[in-house]
Amino acid sequence: MEPSIQLTSSGRLKHFLSVYGLDNALLTEILDTADSFIEVGERNIRKVPLLRGKTVVNLFFEHSTRTRSTFELAAKRLSADVLNLDISTSATSKGESLSDMLKNLEAMASDMFVVRHSQSGAAHFIANSVTPGVAIINAGDGWHAHPTQAMLDMLTIRQKLGRFEGLKVAIVGDILHSRVARSQIRALNTLGVEEVRVIAPDTLLPQHVECLGVKVFRQMAKGLKDVDVIIMLRLQKERMEGGLLPSEQEYFRLYGLDRDKLALAKPGAIVMHPGPINRGVEISSDVADGSQSVILNQVTNGIAIRMAVMSMAMGGQNECKSAIREAAE
Amino acid sequence: MEPSIQLTSSGRLKHFLSVYGLDNALLTEILDTADSFIEVGERNIRKVPLLRGKTVVNLFFEHSTRTRSTFELAAKRLSADVLNLDISTSATSKGESLSDMLKNLEAMASDMFVVRHSQSGAAHFIANSVTPGVAIINAGDGWHAHPTQAMLDMLTIRQKLGRFEGLKVAIVGDILHSRVARSQIRALNTLGVEEVRVIAPDTLLPQHVECLGVKVFRQMAKGLKDVDVIIMLRLQKERMEGGLLPSEQEYFRLYGLDRDKLALAKPGAIVMHPGPINRGVEISSDVADGSQSVILNQVTNGIAIRMAVMSMAMGGQNECKSAIREAAE
Amino acid sequence: MEPSIQLTSSGRLKHFLSVYGLDNALLTEILDTADSFIEVGERNIRKVPLLRGKTVVNLFFEHSTRTRSTFELAAKRLSADVLNLDISTSATSKGESLSDMLKNLEAMASDMFVVRHSQSGAAHFIANSVTPGVAIINAGDGWHAHPTQAMLDMLTIRQKLGRFEGLKVAIVGDILHSRVARSQIRALNTLGVEEVRVIAPDTLLPQHVECLGVKVFRQMAKGLKDVDVIIMLRLQKERMEGGLLPSEQEYFRLYGLDRDKLALAKPGAIVMHPGPINRGVEISSDVADGSQSVILNQVTNGIAIRMAVMSMAMGGQNECKSAIREAAE
Repeated sequence: MEPSIQLTSSGRLKHFLSVYGLDNALLTEILDTADSFIEVGERNIRKVPLLRGKTVVNLFFEHSTRTRSTFELAAKRLSADVLNLDISTSATSKGESLSDMLKNLEAMASDMFVVRHSQSGAAHFIANSVTPGVAIINAGDGWHAHPTQAMLDMLTIRQKLGRFEGLKVAIVGDILHSRVARSQIRALNTLGVEEVRVIAPDTLLPQHVECLGVKVFRQMAKGLKDVDVIIMLRLQKERMEGGLLPSEQEYFRLYGLDRDKLALAKPGAIVMHPGPINRGVEISSDVADGSQSVILNQVTNGIAIRMAVMSMAMGGQNECKSAIREAAE
Repeated sequence: MEPSIQLTSSGRLKHFLSVYGLDNALLTEILDTADSFIEVGERNIRKVPLLRGKTVVNLFFEHSTRTRSTFELAAKRLSADVLNLDISTSATSKGESLSDMLKNLEAMASDMFVVRHSQSGAAHFIANSVTPGVAIINAGDGWHAHPTQAMLDMLTIRQKLGRFEGLKVAIVGDILHSRVARSQIRALNTLGVEEVRVIAPDTLLPQHVECLGVKVFRQMAKGLKDVDVIIMLRLQKERMEGGLLPSEQEYFRLYGLDRDKLALAKPGAIVMHPGPINRGVEISSDVADGSQSVILNQVTNGIAIRMAVMSMAMGGQNECKSAIREAAE
Repeated sequence: MEPSIQLTSSGRLKHFLSVYGLDNALLTEILDTADSFIEVGERNIRKVPLLRGKTVVNLFFEHSTRTRSTFELAAKRLSADVLNLDISTSATSKGESLSDMLKNLEAMASDMFVVRHSQSGAAHFIANSVTPGVAIINAGDGWHAHPTQAMLDMLTIRQKLGRFEGLKVAIVGDILHSRVARSQIRALNTLGVEEVRVIAPDTLLPQHVECLGVKVFRQMAKGLKDVDVIIMLRLQKERMEGGLLPSEQEYFRLYGLDRDKLALAKPGAIVMHPGPINRGVEISSDVADGSQSVILNQVTNGIAIRMAVMSMAMGGQNECKSAIREAAE
């Protein structure tokens, strides 16, 4: 990806497609902006007028009530009008091309598309196709990226531990099929943690995973030693049927996080999970509900992060529009 | 049910789960509040800002466009943001527990869940599970309760007849399977009517129904004599296939309300039905559309009642939050 | 249709069911009003408060995400609350009659129904059934009419060519099954174009089509000669299976618009299509995306036209309500 597609010429965010191409300063700006929205969520009136009169289209080519709801809430708290489009039942079934559909949505004066698609690169393709003025937010594409999830994890780490410098972070589980893990690894490295580890059996690791900037462990005993943060990934149960994995019980024994394995990490280490949780498969109930778990903080932070990238991208688009108007005068 | 779950320590409503546990004064407060919202519905601008910036989640585990629409309208007239969740297609299908899903919705800073579920007690279970600050409104659970429907019926009675004292009310039809009948019987007795009657064949009466505080009649001729209010219940046609009932024609002959049977009631008696109507099964068209029918008033009052319990429960939750904040200082 | 059903006694719009019965002055008022809303769509805040506090119900008996979305956006830009009802899954499946359902929606204090139905005349039937105060907007009924589509086409023509007088307009394709063509022919004639032509094979022409006020052509070569406007209709691919049409390739060869056929029209002639486009069937890609195509302008104008008829019809209803109130005093 060309680094600049997400940025205006002055370096402001105008799309949010991936944490790749964004430097420490920009990721930090996203986190700072999200911090300011956390306060909004605690107010009696949880709304700010930043996107008032703007139209946000939730363009979900792949069904996800959970993710769609968080973006819908975030957009409404920014005072936007929201249009939910379930693409599987829409015009594409009448033989319309994706490109024609996007042009139509643009012509309706939409300001932002929140895109979820099963194919890697779909959000980038759309950002390249649409005319200036429409911000694209990636809500998950294939195994590629799920950057708002990664950023809400970063926000949670900074909130709980106060810094990234010097931290050791372990990501545990199905790295191979995870939309989230790649985005997390990149964001953690950009933000300057000391060490990112992945812990998984060989069958769940991508080839050349070490090139992503991680230390690879096959066993929890070694991998969890001295870490400050443990990020558990969700196990896609479908994988098990594919023969990639042993039984759930066996997986839990080897890679599930229980009280004993948690004791290997640094005292006070925080435990994260993107949800929904498979209790007793990736994580035991006492750990999921225990004092070191920050799983529900992640959910709360998810709204704030989405508000942050939506409002920042809209700001960048407005900058572009002003520049275009001035050039035309 | 412990009586206090719906109330704050100062006796204000904080959830609306059931008319059980609410006294005459509180039911009357709901009716008075609804009266004030009826005026809002007649205004040119039908909105009040009472729930502005609040997030209301319609959590329907059981599909009901009709009930969902009335709650959605009520919430929007209170200026809330509304999120509709169709649970059957949502995260529960990914193996997430109900409890985890609720915690997630709370963490998104939701303020109110409107719950519909096929299991009795589901709304109570949820009210017991969620943390303080989230109001639960029961939109129908199993055969147990449908308290907003009961309250809109009370509002309609008071509106048309001006009082509860001295009234005789007959509830006709499938008492056994009705979500509504139990709530109605309780509300009528709490509000002090003179007599509540149920009229049904034995196969459609719960055991020990007389313990609910009603007089039981098997025949319309006797049961309707001198009543001020006739509440017809909707017949679930599925029951007929189960052999509990004779044919539709036979049911209508025995328990359907036509002009002749209506003449047995007090002159000016009002006729109610929760809808949707099966014309010619529970009620004849001339009675449903006749001058004594208040069926469409019930619909209008349904919006006002829902606005009332939503705004009152939010007020109670706010009282709790203030108390918690003060205690923390 | 009696001409007056859409109009108040002082001649203002109160429903928008059809372009039939509306004179040049009223169609021009719709276009002028839409022009004023185009400016709103270009603003930074795309909202006006004309329908604030009003409830608009999208009553779609026939699924159409595309049309529903444009009405939803238009209503939200007018600041209305929008309720989307998917009728196929709603109360009608519980055996409720259409008339009972409408009365219920009215009783919930709805202000406007946007109706789409597969049966011709459905919107008129509903306008005749509902009580005064509820505006009905026809979003397409059977083969009969799709009047907002026709009006957005008129707006686009006036915007691009500055007038109707003296224009020659050709409508090409499946006139027989088109919801849109009848509305277009009527609107064009009312607005005073010089000549309306239809170009189609005999199998796709209604009987007595010439009575609608058009010149009939079977061949593009003659029909397109000297026209100012070419309106391509969408080909329902289902028709081909019915044997009414040759293959797609053959259809394109005879009636598809490519660069060569376009050259037959007047230089600078504009090309229109209601979308979604079947590229290579009705129209070649270079023409669809070329400088004479105004297809995306049509989409933008569609929002403005819908805002125009919604706000005008609500104005007419308010006039009626004032008159009723005065009469009652």
